[in-house]
Amino acid sequence: MEKELSKLMGFRPEIKVVDATLRDGGLVNDFYFTDEFVKELYQTNVKAGVDYMEFGYKASKELFDVNKFGKWKFCDDDHIREITGDNNSPLKIAVMADVGRCDFRKDIQEKSNSPIDLIRVACYLHQIPAAVEMIEDAKSKGYEVSCNIMAVSNAQEADLKIALETIAKSPADILYIVDSYGSIYPEQMARLADIFLNIAAKYSKQVGIHAHDNQKLAFANTIECCGDGVNYLDATYASMGRGAGNCSIENLIGFLKNPKFNIYPVIKFLEEQMAPLKEQCKWGYDWQYLLTGILNQHPRTAIAYTKDNRKDITNFYKEITSES
Amino acid sequence: MEKELSKLMGFRPEIKVVDATLRDGGLVNDFYFTDEFVKELYQTNVKAGVDYMEFGYKASKELFDVNKFGKWKFCDDDHIREITGDNNSPLKIAVMADVGRCDFRKDIQEKSNSPIDLIRVACYLHQIPAAVEMIEDAKSKGYEVSCNIMAVSNAQEADLKIALETIAKSPADILYIVDSYGSIYPEQMARLADIFLNIAAKYSKQVGIHAHDNQKLAFANTIECCGDGVNYLDATYASMGRGAGNCSIENLIGFLKNPKFNIYPVIKFLEEQMAPLKEQCKWGYDWQYLLTGILNQHPRTAIAYTKDNRKDITNFYKEITSES
Repeated sequence: MEKELSKLMGFRPEIKVVDATLRDGGLVNDFYFTDEFVKELYQTNVKAGVDYMEFGYKASKELFDVNKFGKWKFCDDDHIREITGDNNSPLKIAVMADVGRCDFRKDIQEKSNSPIDLIRVACYLHQIPAAVEMIEDAKSKGYEVSCNIMAVSNAQEADLKIALETIAKSPADILYIVDSYGSIYPEQMARLADIFLNIAAKYSKQVGIHAHDNQKLAFANTIECCGDGVNYLDATYASMGRGAGNCSIENLIGFLKNPKFNIYPVIKFLEEQMAPLKEQCKWGYDWQYLLTGILNQHPRTAIAYTKDNRKDITNFYKEITSES
Repeated sequence: MEKELSKLMGFRPEIKVVDATLRDGGLVNDFYFTDEFVKELYQTNVKAGVDYMEFGYKASKELFDVNKFGKWKFCDDDHIREITGDNNSPLKIAVMADVGRCDFRKDIQEKSNSPIDLIRVACYLHQIPAAVEMIEDAKSKGYEVSCNIMAVSNAQEADLKIALETIAKSPADILYIVDSYGSIYPEQMARLADIFLNIAAKYSKQVGIHAHDNQKLAFANTIECCGDGVNYLDATYASMGRGAGNCSIENLIGFLKNPKFNIYPVIKFLEEQMAPLKEQCKWGYDWQYLLTGILNQHPRTAIAYTKDNRKDITNFYKEITSES
């Protein structure tokens, strides 16, 4: 497969930057962002030329206690409207809905009544039929829809292809590669992108990438995908996201050549909002995440290690490689 | 060019890992490492299967005040011997000698009298004739010799090819790509590697890569090169190195498949030696380095910003993009 990156000294106008700061970053602070932060983030995204802003999850209020999380875990349409007003901007609004953790029939309104543009349906490979049901529901209500297949590094290639064919036959618009464990190397990412892009092309779908920074490869994997033809690129301010975090939007905007993207508002937001936030909560690349990434493990052990302020990385390595 | 990475599920035994912690890291702490640190580093490298350990510079004692730097800026043979004894190990010993900043005729002994195996001659593109003189001197004394061409991101391709032909005709064994500004993206790195590898193949030379982490791409660029056929891979513990630092050896050892490499001693050294060192001095990826990297500028402004503990990244961006 021929890289398209060289062509970016021009640029590919189809490329969309998706800011996932509130959603993936919300996993760090239980979605307790101040309204000021969210308003500034929205304004910054508009100024920076970002294409989508993901506000958070549409999580089930049956399953999750609304008193134990900030409002962006639930993303009521009214809360979004308080930030965006009528959203007179080219910035589109996204939310994520997890298979099995969302009362989508009740909580997702008709698009005509909602400020949301894109519903991102997140699922594991074994949940594809349930994902298709949600995709069909969201599409029938009038939304753009993506299907974000998590933990793709653990998928058998044959299973993945069957799943992708199934989703590609559904009304979903975008198929997302999600490197949940941050364990994928760029060349492997190129092979995955190839699989996704081939099936997507057959059904006229788009492909997206959501990377994690366990091995400091989130940005590298994102631009690898970009060069391969993936158009939807997830990123977050200061890499804020669960565990090792994501591809940073400052890296990505600094890389993309489309003049609609502006790095200055991004830098300003980093200084004014992200630097103080970094004092309050912890995320980002560190040794414990590298180790779970290398081992292709879920980062939950590394997140617990971080939360406990542990420094005994040698013991941690023994724990996560023990056979008991 | 076809990537070789896939073949690494086997591995390429020609791949050499070069630990540059003392040399590039010495630029962070003026080479004031404790003897205990250096001894532990040496032992760790032996256990981890690292191929070369760079001890520091052979800097001119005329140009630099020996009282203002730790001993690894000068790398007297006797000081190396105090660490390595007779070095009864497969680990080879390297030092760097900068063109114009080294009294090489006087300070570099005959190999038969020295613990050093590899002399790394560092130069800018306009210093090639002086580099060749040093290469010839070191080779005639019996050493392996590399030529490390710095700031390659600023080179015109035509100039670079002439320089590489000149060095390839010299007795140097290894031609090194040095991304001094951390500004090169993996696809550009692949193109550079191609240029280096083609000329190297013609003259039966090896190629090396020394990356910087300004855009969090040091590891990605290193494994890009590795996949392209570059065999000498520089890395440092915890990425320790000037400014944004280098490709981390923990990432690299975690990636390489040759069973001679062991990550456990690396992790142990991180906990016991690098974690305390990180409390004392500052290096590594941060926004100021990202910005000089994106702009393909020397990181000296970002290093000064870091030293001054500045947090006004917005002003910094204005400064480095101002035309005055």
